[in-house]
Amino acid sequence: MRLPALPALDPAFRAAVLRHVDDLTKPLGALGRLESLGAQLAWIAGTLRPADPEACILTFGGDHGLARHQVSAYPQEVTVQMMANIAGGGAAVSALCRANRIHHRVVDVGVASPCPFPGVAQRNVLRGTRDALAEPAMTRAEAEATVQAGLDEVALLPAHPFALLGVGEMGIANSSVAAILMCAFTGLDPAEAVGPGTGVAGASLGRKMEVIRQVLEARRPDPSDPIGALAAVGGAEFGAMAGAMLGAAARGWAVIVDGYIAGAAALVALALDPRLDDFLVWSHRSAEPGARRLLEHLGKEPVLDLDLRLGEGTGAALAVPILRSACAVVREMATFAGAGVSRP
Amino acid sequence: MRLPALPALDPAFRAAVLRHVDDLTKPLGALGRLESLGAQLAWIAGTLRPADPEACILTFGGDHGLARHQVSAYPQEVTVQMMANIAGGGAAVSALCRANRIHHRVVDVGVASPCPFPGVAQRNVLRGTRDALAEPAMTRAEAEATVQAGLDEVALLPAHPFALLGVGEMGIANSSVAAILMCAFTGLDPAEAVGPGTGVAGASLGRKMEVIRQVLEARRPDPSDPIGALAAVGGAEFGAMAGAMLGAAARGWAVIVDGYIAGAAALVALALDPRLDDFLVWSHRSAEPGARRLLEHLGKEPVLDLDLRLGEGTGAALAVPILRSACAVVREMATFAGAGVSRP
Repeated sequence: MRLPALPALDPAFRAAVLRHVDDLTKPLGALGRLESLGAQLAWIAGTLRPADPEACILTFGGDHGLARHQVSAYPQEVTVQMMANIAGGGAAVSALCRANRIHHRVVDVGVASPCPFPGVAQRNVLRGTRDALAEPAMTRAEAEATVQAGLDEVALLPAHPFALLGVGEMGIANSSVAAILMCAFTGLDPAEAVGPGTGVAGASLGRKMEVIRQVLEARRPDPSDPIGALAAVGGAEFGAMAGAMLGAAARGWAVIVDGYIAGAAALVALALDPRLDDFLVWSHRSAEPGARRLLEHLGKEPVLDLDLRLGEGTGAALAVPILRSACAVVREMATFAGAGVSRP
Repeated sequence: MRLPALPALDPAFRAAVLRHVDDLTKPLGALGRLESLGAQLAWIAGTLRPADPEACILTFGGDHGLARHQVSAYPQEVTVQMMANIAGGGAAVSALCRANRIHHRVVDVGVASPCPFPGVAQRNVLRGTRDALAEPAMTRAEAEATVQAGLDEVALLPAHPFALLGVGEMGIANSSVAAILMCAFTGLDPAEAVGPGTGVAGASLGRKMEVIRQVLEARRPDPSDPIGALAAVGGAEFGAMAGAMLGAAARGWAVIVDGYIAGAAALVALALDPRLDDFLVWSHRSAEPGARRLLEHLGKEPVLDLDLRLGEGTGAALAVPILRSACAVVREMATFAGAGVSRP
């Protein structure tokens, strides 16, 4: 695995974009978050007139040895069943990508069972991670291979000078893995980071929390060694999402982080290259409590706040039309001078 | 003016829609607000498989006698200048409608100067309202004519069994009129309802608040007589927006309320026919403080929360792709049984 170099974005050009946005025919700041999003995208695109961006979402599937500890409301077989459903076009992310003109790829990077379904990209590194409570979830070589799988998927996408790349996932038990990574990389306590995921409540939620504490204790994932931390606790789809984020930013594209799980993958990717931060758009504030804490910790304001907690890339897909709208405003609005409109 | 009859939506069908949404391949409730929006739209459309809806936004322009009291940061001439800019495609709402496949019409219903620009629909009822501090802003006949203008605009739109109709506005000083209507129809105090609008601050904001208090005192708009209240304080674009909302609901379409100003028009329309409530989607939580209070007062959760405070229909336009996405999810997602996915 060799990480790509991310382009350095010019702060002077960012200032020029902000001046341009202030000169458009609207009261100063009246388009709120749409202005800051449009400015960020124009900055990444390197132009005051960002073209309507193509968008792609990659949904990476993986399974987790931790699932045996009943940390999810669903059985592990649901991962492969949902891979088939996503590839068949019946999942939420499938419908949302069709509705929003988004190219969609679903990728087996670590599902426990083979996914021989038309439309599933075959990049399996391992058939589910090992039980992180008992041993490292992956070897270092496996962890690197998952990051490489994400890089390779992005390298396959068509050439665009600027585009939007969203990442999402499918993997029973991966909200536990996300919580572990979040605690490792942010210092949050499991009591803050752990939540119901697909719907774990009551005593089961207590057990989930306890398993997560024990994994943190047993594996001691080290945030200064992101690949080592990823290998220690998993999982494959996290590594692939991190790789895809870095690969997209290296191509000069904006990267849309889906929700709670993808947010944890973003922490791995940011640890691998902090310059990624400039390229990230946080799509929504998931209903999963730890997602809100993560956004607060990073000081990020998301695009949407729709109480989503599904994953797959659904939040990223819903953010796409808002991001395209933000580009359209920066690209197409008249200036006060150009339109002959009086200023205050 | 004769108000159209709104269809009565069947509560039993709403329950059937909610059951269908619960049977789709996702954890119960995991699509959050997208589920409730999709259910509302399917309910209005009268089908479990709502087609991808056509969308139209009507932007109504009007001027206000109150502008002479310096309640806005901008001079009155900006209304007609912006009508030209909107019709010419350079305004924010123009860019957002193009970006989101939305049919857009801009309508002069009460602008102080003629708007002889290609693309502006000519439905002028009066060349700006009278100064509501000194006398009623409109006659009762004028107020009715503005509502009729909105009804007539909607009647011109192509036949669709189901569609999305968004309403927005352009009118210097209309955030003052919105605040007055909001106080009249909800009982909010001006201190809660009045805000900076396009950017009034400090002593000017104090003066704006004082003017609004004096108008409420002088005109005493009566919420049980919505046309009378509209005539008393104005304005033309509020009447037209109310008429358009009622006209669209009468056609069986969902109605997207833009922001603070359109929200005040919705209060007039709801007072004219409370059944409108089932058809309304509140597009966003405007940064204007009174908008948040109005949503709280009505117990409504908006689609977006992007700190917008521009009007024109910009918030309604941004909500359109989310609403289409909500329809797509209800229409296209597989069920657990259909996709062979295990339940918890």
